Amino acid sequence: MNKAIFYHAGCPVCVEAEQRFVTALNPSNYQVEEVHLGNEKNRVSEAEAAGVKSVPALVIEGTPFHINFGAPLSDLK
Amino acid sequence: MNKAIFYHAGCPVCVEAEQRFVTALNPSNYQVEEVHLGNEKNRVSEAEAAGVKSVPALVIEGTPFHINFGAPLSDLK
Repeated sequence: MNKAIFYHAGCPVCVEAEQRFVTALNPSNYQVEEVHLGNEKNRVSEAEAAGVKSVPALVIEGTPFHINFGAPLSDLK
Repeated sequence: MNKAIFYHAGCPVCVEAEQRFVTALNPSNYQVEEVHLGNEKNRVSEAEAAGVKSVPALVIEGTPFHINFGAPLSDLK
């Protein structure tokens, strides 16, 4: 099982990406964790370390993919 | 079966998105078509009409998702 982390901040762009995109991932290959960085500010540094610059972003096995643009990470600190 | 179209231009960012991202989609729910806009310039207008601004991008049931940033669509005309 591969690990994927979806970082978001509850913004409209984030919600759309989650609903249309994250649910499209193959559930037999990927375990997806969702992290709301507005509520879990202690995980912003973890997202930054993975290369996340903005939300929504999906980190698949350590590689960050920015999906559209909701908010810069700096707004969530 | 839902339809997803992955627009790309063969750039390194596109290839990474394809390998790590498109293959992660649930094959029992999504039929993914890949379109190389550098080779199929006649489909640039179709991508534009779907709201694609840059590649790589994945259009899921008509909604565009830009994944990271490889090249603007205007470079492919």
